[in-house]
Amino acid sequence: MRRFLTPGDIGDLKVALEDAKLAKNNPYADQALGRNKTLLLLFFNSSLRTRLSSQRAGSNLGMNVIVMDVNKDGWQLETEYGVIMDGDKPEHIREAVPVMGEYCDIIGVRSFARFDNREEDYSEPIINQFIKYSGVPVISLESATRHPLQAFADLFTIMEKKKVDRPKVVLTWAPHPRALPQAVPNSFVEWMKEAPVDLVVTHPEGYELAPEFMKGVHYEPDQNKAFEGADFIYAKNWSSYSAYGQILSQDRSWTVDETKMALTNEACFMHCLPVRRNMIVTDAVIESPQSIIIEEAANRVVSMQVVLKRMLQSIAEEEDF
Amino acid sequence: MRRFLTPGDIGDLKVALEDAKLAKNNPYADQALGRNKTLLLLFFNSSLRTRLSSQRAGSNLGMNVIVMDVNKDGWQLETEYGVIMDGDKPEHIREAVPVMGEYCDIIGVRSFARFDNREEDYSEPIINQFIKYSGVPVISLESATRHPLQAFADLFTIMEKKKVDRPKVVLTWAPHPRALPQAVPNSFVEWMKEAPVDLVVTHPEGYELAPEFMKGVHYEPDQNKAFEGADFIYAKNWSSYSAYGQILSQDRSWTVDETKMALTNEACFMHCLPVRRNMIVTDAVIESPQSIIIEEAANRVVSMQVVLKRMLQSIAEEEDF
Amino acid sequence: MRRFLTPGDIGDLKVALEDAKLAKNNPYADQALGRNKTLLLLFFNSSLRTRLSSQRAGSNLGMNVIVMDVNKDGWQLETEYGVIMDGDKPEHIREAVPVMGEYCDIIGVRSFARFDNREEDYSEPIINQFIKYSGVPVISLESATRHPLQAFADLFTIMEKKKVDRPKVVLTWAPHPRALPQAVPNSFVEWMKEAPVDLVVTHPEGYELAPEFMKGVHYEPDQNKAFEGADFIYAKNWSSYSAYGQILSQDRSWTVDETKMALTNEACFMHCLPVRRNMIVTDAVIESPQSIIIEEAANRVVSMQVVLKRMLQSIAEEEDF
Repeated sequence: MRRFLTPGDIGDLKVALEDAKLAKNNPYADQALGRNKTLLLLFFNSSLRTRLSSQRAGSNLGMNVIVMDVNKDGWQLETEYGVIMDGDKPEHIREAVPVMGEYCDIIGVRSFARFDNREEDYSEPIINQFIKYSGVPVISLESATRHPLQAFADLFTIMEKKKVDRPKVVLTWAPHPRALPQAVPNSFVEWMKEAPVDLVVTHPEGYELAPEFMKGVHYEPDQNKAFEGADFIYAKNWSSYSAYGQILSQDRSWTVDETKMALTNEACFMHCLPVRRNMIVTDAVIESPQSIIIEEAANRVVSMQVVLKRMLQSIAEEEDF
Repeated sequence: MRRFLTPGDIGDLKVALEDAKLAKNNPYADQALGRNKTLLLLFFNSSLRTRLSSQRAGSNLGMNVIVMDVNKDGWQLETEYGVIMDGDKPEHIREAVPVMGEYCDIIGVRSFARFDNREEDYSEPIINQFIKYSGVPVISLESATRHPLQAFADLFTIMEKKKVDRPKVVLTWAPHPRALPQAVPNSFVEWMKEAPVDLVVTHPEGYELAPEFMKGVHYEPDQNKAFEGADFIYAKNWSSYSAYGQILSQDRSWTVDETKMALTNEACFMHCLPVRRNMIVTDAVIESPQSIIIEEAANRVVSMQVVLKRMLQSIAEEEDF
Repeated sequence: MRRFLTPGDIGDLKVALEDAKLAKNNPYADQALGRNKTLLLLFFNSSLRTRLSSQRAGSNLGMNVIVMDVNKDGWQLETEYGVIMDGDKPEHIREAVPVMGEYCDIIGVRSFARFDNREEDYSEPIINQFIKYSGVPVISLESATRHPLQAFADLFTIMEKKKVDRPKVVLTWAPHPRALPQAVPNSFVEWMKEAPVDLVVTHPEGYELAPEFMKGVHYEPDQNKAFEGADFIYAKNWSSYSAYGQILSQDRSWTVDETKMALTNEACFMHCLPVRRNMIVTDAVIESPQSIIIEEAANRVVSMQVVLKRMLQSIAEEEDF
């Protein structure tokens, strides 16, 4: 396993979910795999859960974990080709990436959408440089268009908590004061499409996700109707894809509250965090027993650990060869 | 042991001091206890000694140590309840705290007094959120009103260095250009009251510590008189409690100099560091053989290690149960 | 081995290069030496390669590695003596250094030239404080006038790559938009003088390095003539020593391009990185098969590991004694 960006990268989801259960029940069983292996976690953007859960997952596997905030600890990186580098960026990503690959065995990279240009963001310029040039396996710690560790943890959480064989899972847009990337909803939809769930997506007009993600997905424009009989409510804000990076609505009638939750089949409430209280969801709902956000966050260690273990196994096989 | 904020939390001080001696003489003896345990050190404020000594203490015990600067590495945290989070703080401490608790086994938190409101600071709002909601043992790495790891290290240092059975220990206020919290003097007084020492506190008018700390403590308004026959001089600046957070004096006649030290019983000079030279203490005194500030700082590893070991033992007992 | 700043500190270069080969071929062989030993890496300036390669080298040796950005994580340090510390720097380096020495076994320090005053920079005020007062072995992670870990890695790389017994090595100045320190060229010259190579230095007028470094070194004012028959081209910018810290030229005719490389004996192209593309060197040359910059950067782990191993051996001998 050389990269982790889409569900396809992890192969059979059933097997991956079994591995997740094993990792959760026995987190320290595979430390021989990680011995003398270094995990480099690179952040171009802030992080709390991803940073801490990845450090923990690496340590659980016996790895040496190095965290680096590229912009603060290192140098500003030039990402354009062919330029005369006489400005404020002293290093080109084309040198920085292979050099970082020399100092570690696996790289995790967080680099959000920049919102300058949709085509550019959706071409995933940063993480693809790492995949092409680092020489080591690369994990998305949330890239411009995807957050697969979150989606994998979400799926595992749903499988743990479901009370019916094939639960109804609703992804609902909710208001937020800032323009947020589409990475979390994109990956959520991408993973749920592969999972034994009935997915419904609801959002105001203009908030359609990119067609490659929404193809074949059930869209319901009426949030209340979407909530009816739901087993899981997954709330999230995102900015517009069509009017790229724009905030088209801050309509607080979309905030998830107790009245809406009453329409569901006693649904679990989920969110990837950080969450804006009383924008995305009311205090009452987030503090209710149906809220499983903390368990969901805790499962971020599990999803990372499964991915790391697969990569360490690939490395071990190569070394044996 | 679920929290470390006051001397009462560590129980019998004689036993704790014996444990400190053991930890100092044989720092790597308890690594089995820390194996596969993660210590999270969270800083809302800057740190040098606390950060480094805590990392070292955790490593000595075989723990995996994660350091995080909450404001720089993670997200700004909202601490008010019931607000509509449409401002610049994307995450509520009510979510952040239990999530962080999921990723580690013990949390250390540094969060200084904010000086907005005395009642609020003295209610210890930040560390108490961690104690209530993290689900794991919590250590103060200096909170709004207390710095117990420093006070415990100070006490251990005094016990190591004392030349008489019951030394006279003087806490003296000294001038400083900034308004500093009362955490260090509060804890120092709180711990010395429990110790086999004669404590005297001296400061200019208006610098009385909070009554709950000063109850039963000998106050001497005349600094020179306080110094007479002292075995230990502990210098520290703090801002006013009554005129909360105010600087009432920058009177350099309170600076500890050789003339004042000559009044003592060849007292050891102590300070928690960082120290403002020629404000708190003259170059001559801090560089004199009586200055034990470096040994005092070194003992910060010892006090942290005793606290961590106690907490690890509690965790091991719970796991066995 | 108590300090690492010059080639003399590491003793016989032949032996050091043999040790480097061992460390590269078997990086995890000496973990018993590093067990329960702490390496503190202190940065007063940004770092990517030095930070990551030093963390990796320490981990390879089984050490506990702590990274600290002094200015961001800790306190601003006062470095002047005798001042009344009533300004914005709350701690004196005279306290901070011995305290940091108490919390670790080896310290690495990065502190660049400040360019305020040549005499001051060339007296190496920061690293010398650590050597004098920390009480532990000290490694330069690039100080005001030297970058010995880079030069040692450069030498090892040249020895690995050379196709003739005594290669011609050319250090060439190249243009850059900022005023850079002389640390890298100083150390490069200092190490090459001791090595079995023919060193030639070329630069525009006014860019002479300090006489103590250039004594006995072949200087060639004509860059083209210098390149003729060269086996290694080492490009680097530096600011003037005589007009201290000034940029006297940004002449892009000194940029290393394919025409100039064609004058050489199919020379390898080297640079310490970060490198300004199309200022120092063209895209074509840096991406050519002759460019060995990534292998050169990878060898930074090796040079650090040799130095750390020597220091750990000295510590072990002292402990045995």
